[in-house]
Amino acid sequence: MAQRPVNFSPGPSILAQPVLEEASRAVVALEDVGLSILEISHRSPAFDKILNTARDTIRRLMGVPDTHDILFLQGGARGQFAQVPLNFLAPGTKGAYVDTGAWSSYALDEADVLGEAYALASSKEAGYGALPDLSSAALDEGTVYVHTTSNNTIYGTQWRTLPGFGDVPHVCDMSSDIMSRPVDVSKFGLIYAGAQKNAGPAGVTLAIIDKAWMSRGRDDIPSIWQYRVQANKGSTYNTPPVFAIYVVGLVAKWLEAQGGVAAIAEVNEKKAQLLYDAIDTSGGFYQATVAEDAHRSRMNVTWRLPSADLDKAFVARAAEIGLASLKGHRKVGGIRASIYNALPLEGVERLAAFMKKFRATH
Amino acid sequence: MAQRPVNFSPGPSILAQPVLEEASRAVVALEDVGLSILEISHRSPAFDKILNTARDTIRRLMGVPDTHDILFLQGGARGQFAQVPLNFLAPGTKGAYVDTGAWSSYALDEADVLGEAYALASSKEAGYGALPDLSSAALDEGTVYVHTTSNNTIYGTQWRTLPGFGDVPHVCDMSSDIMSRPVDVSKFGLIYAGAQKNAGPAGVTLAIIDKAWMSRGRDDIPSIWQYRVQANKGSTYNTPPVFAIYVVGLVAKWLEAQGGVAAIAEVNEKKAQLLYDAIDTSGGFYQATVAEDAHRSRMNVTWRLPSADLDKAFVARAAEIGLASLKGHRKVGGIRASIYNALPLEGVERLAAFMKKFRATH
Repeated sequence: MAQRPVNFSPGPSILAQPVLEEASRAVVALEDVGLSILEISHRSPAFDKILNTARDTIRRLMGVPDTHDILFLQGGARGQFAQVPLNFLAPGTKGAYVDTGAWSSYALDEADVLGEAYALASSKEAGYGALPDLSSAALDEGTVYVHTTSNNTIYGTQWRTLPGFGDVPHVCDMSSDIMSRPVDVSKFGLIYAGAQKNAGPAGVTLAIIDKAWMSRGRDDIPSIWQYRVQANKGSTYNTPPVFAIYVVGLVAKWLEAQGGVAAIAEVNEKKAQLLYDAIDTSGGFYQATVAEDAHRSRMNVTWRLPSADLDKAFVARAAEIGLASLKGHRKVGGIRASIYNALPLEGVERLAAFMKKFRATH
Repeated sequence: MAQRPVNFSPGPSILAQPVLEEASRAVVALEDVGLSILEISHRSPAFDKILNTARDTIRRLMGVPDTHDILFLQGGARGQFAQVPLNFLAPGTKGAYVDTGAWSSYALDEADVLGEAYALASSKEAGYGALPDLSSAALDEGTVYVHTTSNNTIYGTQWRTLPGFGDVPHVCDMSSDIMSRPVDVSKFGLIYAGAQKNAGPAGVTLAIIDKAWMSRGRDDIPSIWQYRVQANKGSTYNTPPVFAIYVVGLVAKWLEAQGGVAAIAEVNEKKAQLLYDAIDTSGGFYQATVAEDAHRSRMNVTWRLPSADLDKAFVARAAEIGLASLKGHRKVGGIRASIYNALPLEGVERLAAFMKKFRATH
């Protein structure tokens, strides 16, 4: 058996050891049922309890108000890129998209297929190395929602303070930073997230939706894609991804044991600062791809070395000493350290120490 | 820890013990990676291998010809109820549906939302206790596919011989009997199946699609819901349900070790006959809900006792001696024994013996 490396994978990503161990036992048998979590009916009392506990724990952790439903869906963020406009972009209305690169522009593309969508602002010309300025952004008439991406895993940007758009519902893709810091859920029409970064394994999508807004969505679309149908059926309109939901519940329980979202946010801040310090004090050997601290992600820290060859040598040497998956996204190259909730501070300390050593010898 | 019962759950359903044990170990760590199956990137070499092996094993088991692609999707059969018409029901065309109850009529309802769909034949008037007669069924002009459901989990019917519709593509929901018997895949435009009965855990949907037909599907719909997009990206257009696919691969490997689909079909036949014999030789104490052998499911055997109270007593007593989840679907009541591939012959023998004993004492 290979030694367990520190897993800097951008997603699916590291999970806490107690979560893995409990999940592993449940795959053989759930204690109180005698059957595997993979074999029980989604309409059984055992699964009811699992589903309700996961939902309630997330509600507590994120402070989700009663005005919002918590749904467990399938299809990931890409599924939401299509499901949001399908539900809310009726003819004669528009969806506004804040383009911070890759994911947000894919979301805009899908909306464009289904209705009228436009980029409210974009940092494309800055190579997505910064967040766009929204101070002079004005919504078109007929805009029924504004879509943002809270954190960009590829370019390493993150809205440190999430923008607001007055009475226009705000839809936010929080796939890569959900539950990594406190957020005022009441301000959002919809928050969605593929679970596979901070919230669990791949295969389940969280959606936290304002009930009043949901009820105004289209009802002339297939049932399976209507948020209200899944809400009315408590996320069991069809067979849900039982195991993935179970693990999300374990992750939520683990997060509560860490002190909750505010506590983990402090650790996340410390982890990110260690790396940004290592970059900024390197005399230019390491170049951050995002210059402004206010735009820098606390989840995905991205930087470059003086050459692509050195990038490659850095990633290879790091892997040899058990610091895994540090290669930047193929779109941008360089280095990317994904430091989600479950990645321990010690793992980041080891990386920061390695950065100093590597610089001294190259 | 409760003792392991015989799991007659209609789905999610029983999985073989070696599958559960291997999956359990992988949740702690994959031997060759040192990380959990829940933590690895869907773009890693480790997952590439898992995905390709699962696909190749299914191809061998089902004899899938090169003319067809094998996809791993999300959203279950309900997702396919919408995705099929979205891709293929262009304006001016029609989808024909053979209505064998519940699932097939839900499929028709979703198609109706997206385009023009009609029931080619239905056994609704017979209470779905038989399959409809297709001998005089004539397709409307402009019909671009015919949709069938190979096995009905609620009413206990199954096409022992699947019908054909000439040159019109045949779309078949095989959620509850895929890989339970040999099928000539070349005759289908699309076979789909939620994995959670014969093929794996909940959270992944198999789709086996004719490439030529797929290429004629609409391309003015969201990318995430185009079969061709997932086919072009080898089912990793978005983050796939990694763990569920991994378990499907283990189930396929287990099935090969049992001798493959033809061998398991013989066991399935034997299991079903044991139960139908117990019913038919009970002197009317047990009443089969499907009279004709040619229409009787080999996956879900359904019957009634002389009263609803006796049904209830039967289910309760069975559960006490470790025969679990025998309650009929809420739509029809009675008893249902779901005896998918992984349910061992001995489990069915125990149930048949219990049926005799229960009859003798009531």
